[in-house]
Amino acid sequence: MLTFQLLKTEGHARRGVLTLNHGVVQTPIFMPVGTYGTVKGVMPRSLHDMGAQIILGNTFHLWMRPGLDVMRAFGGLHGFEQWHKPILTDSGGFQVWSLGAMRKITEEGVHFASPVNGDKLFMSPEVSMQIQTVLNSDIVMQLDECTPYWQGDKASGHVTTEAEARASMALSLRWARRSKAEFERLGNPNALFGIVQGGMFEHLRQESLEALVDMDFPGYAIGGVSVGEPKEEMRRIMAHTPHRLPAHKPRYLMGVGTPEDLVEGVACGVDMFDCVMPTRNARNGTIFTRYGDLKLRNARHKADPQPLDPTCTCYACAGASGVSWADGGRDGFSRAYLHHLDRCGEMLGPMLTTIHNLHYYLNLMQEVRDALDAGTFAAFRQRFAAERARGV
Amino acid sequence: MLTFQLLKTEGHARRGVLTLNHGVVQTPIFMPVGTYGTVKGVMPRSLHDMGAQIILGNTFHLWMRPGLDVMRAFGGLHGFEQWHKPILTDSGGFQVWSLGAMRKITEEGVHFASPVNGDKLFMSPEVSMQIQTVLNSDIVMQLDECTPYWQGDKASGHVTTEAEARASMALSLRWARRSKAEFERLGNPNALFGIVQGGMFEHLRQESLEALVDMDFPGYAIGGVSVGEPKEEMRRIMAHTPHRLPAHKPRYLMGVGTPEDLVEGVACGVDMFDCVMPTRNARNGTIFTRYGDLKLRNARHKADPQPLDPTCTCYACAGASGVSWADGGRDGFSRAYLHHLDRCGEMLGPMLTTIHNLHYYLNLMQEVRDALDAGTFAAFRQRFAAERARGV
Ligand SMILES: [Zn+2]
Ligand SMILES: [Zn+2]
Repeated sequence: MLTFQLLKTEGHARRGVLTLNHGVVQTPIFMPVGTYGTVKGVMPRSLHDMGAQIILGNTFHLWMRPGLDVMRAFGGLHGFEQWHKPILTDSGGFQVWSLGAMRKITEEGVHFASPVNGDKLFMSPEVSMQIQTVLNSDIVMQLDECTPYWQGDKASGHVTTEAEARASMALSLRWARRSKAEFERLGNPNALFGIVQGGMFEHLRQESLEALVDMDFPGYAIGGVSVGEPKEEMRRIMAHTPHRLPAHKPRYLMGVGTPEDLVEGVACGVDMFDCVMPTRNARNGTIFTRYGDLKLRNARHKADPQPLDPTCTCYACAGASGVSWADGGRDGFSRAYLHHLDRCGEMLGPMLTTIHNLHYYLNLMQEVRDALDAGTFAAFRQRFAAERARGV
Repeated sequence: MLTFQLLKTEGHARRGVLTLNHGVVQTPIFMPVGTYGTVKGVMPRSLHDMGAQIILGNTFHLWMRPGLDVMRAFGGLHGFEQWHKPILTDSGGFQVWSLGAMRKITEEGVHFASPVNGDKLFMSPEVSMQIQTVLNSDIVMQLDECTPYWQGDKASGHVTTEAEARASMALSLRWARRSKAEFERLGNPNALFGIVQGGMFEHLRQESLEALVDMDFPGYAIGGVSVGEPKEEMRRIMAHTPHRLPAHKPRYLMGVGTPEDLVEGVACGVDMFDCVMPTRNARNGTIFTRYGDLKLRNARHKADPQPLDPTCTCYACAGASGVSWADGGRDGFSRAYLHHLDRCGEMLGPMLTTIHNLHYYLNLMQEVRDALDAGTFAAFRQRFAAERARGV
């Protein structure tokens, strides 16, 4: 089940409501990534507190560990990980594709050796649909071939050619048809998204989206970005594709990006984003704040009593009271303390920085939604860019 | 400031209330260990939720990192780690002593090389008091020499002799006097505990405690246990010393122990315990439950839907609702899920198992206090032993 209601638009930007089997999602939205059935370092309770509405799971990883028997015993991923709001799962294609020399792609699907135990395994559109049906995710992704930006290894390879991108895109379309047929045969009660491919070529993207629109998916993703291309290439595709997709269906830009990418993506008509950046960067000490990124490992934070972001109301910055430093709250954790935890390799460090970074992303999207509701997104976009450029 | 009110006794077991500068502690109590200014893997909010009343900090570690400048800037450890209930700090002696070949003990104190940067450093009763005054812990421990069970290396060493234990105990008494003098000179507003030493020799323990009682500390610790001795030796000292200490002052058994040790320790008249076991074991997949210990890494848990302890109301076992599995709650995390998280090396695994193990220890002490309040500690002690022996 999926319904999508478009509440308001401003230019290409859209404010919507997405209703799925496990609940309602206000868009535009950022979706935290929970690869192995856990958003790394975050308790489900904290995800609720920070306003997460939908999270991701990775089909390939969950297929390998804990495996489908366990998933079946729990009636899917929601019960297993105790997250009862919506979940989106990817197709597993990207991970299989990333195995490199360990896999062989044919028309039928992908043969590969399990990275966990070496078992010979096979992934196809049908297999991906079968796994995602067991996972019972609210949004299921078609199996596609993720067209890379660069073909071959770094030294002897080349940027993907038009012919290569076309062949890959065409294969993804054939796999889209097979994904849809299997999804329907299985009677999966959730919603299947088609994925637009076509590399860095607008005319291929156009061909791909038209063919997918003909197949009438309830939602569409834009794949094959954030695959090693220069930022301006990604921005070019982001400007091309989203607003050409059907207005009354949700649009998901896969694997993107920085806070700036998200705001620009909304301006281009994207409704849904996911990215490992807030969680991964948190563990590496790179902190997103209203006034730019902060490098927690820098010695200048050694005795700084301020929280990561004085305007932030997350548990890391504002403690249990939720009153930001800027509003006089002094219950948060200082940069000095978080710097110390990182230096000592203490788990509480990434626990708190992850809460902050995810809260930053989720709150940013809340501010975007508020601006769209108020019809002031254009002004918001300008102010956002200026504040982020100010520097922390 | 320290006041200790004895509410009730049953045999040697005692129910009391300890009032410190940062709050009130109901005894008997278990104190989670927060070495570097964080109980490993636990948010202060979770510590509150699970009923922690007082936590430990390690003077030596905090002296090394973040150092006293930072501690001074934050007015002590409470503000730095955002824990505003009582804190007890050790003296740093145990850690210095553990440096082995890197340190040299004299009458004056201990010369050693910093394990962080190799700097030549000096620890003495006076230095320990100065550091703990900066930390502003509610309970300060005297510097002592922790008499080991075994002298020298494993192959060529020997069990500590009476003469060695006596010399070490006598040094600790002289350091107790110097600790007290410096603590008073500094005008530290908190409470200083003396530490009974004497190795595995009851008559030396008796000499030590009598001399310390003459010095009139507001509380007493029993040190030099859990230092490599066989369990029955520890139990022998635990049976000897606590009830011989002044009845109107709190008694702290350092570094002990298993749940069984705690209940037996209470029966011997101990009021306060600390141990890294619940937190360390949680990270290694050894889980304490009402019906015995559970090895989470065992493959038999792979698809088990039960929580770690069906009678437990912690967040790991009962989720945000706090209703245990035994009472019909199904919001907790399953053994299958926690087994999976451990197998994938996901941080959420130790985060949840640490919450459970600490909750188990804190709840056990709550049950002990309830039994003492009701005058049924003897029956509780029997039932506890029988339930734990049943097996999970
Ligand atoms: Zn924050
Ligand atoms: Zn529990």
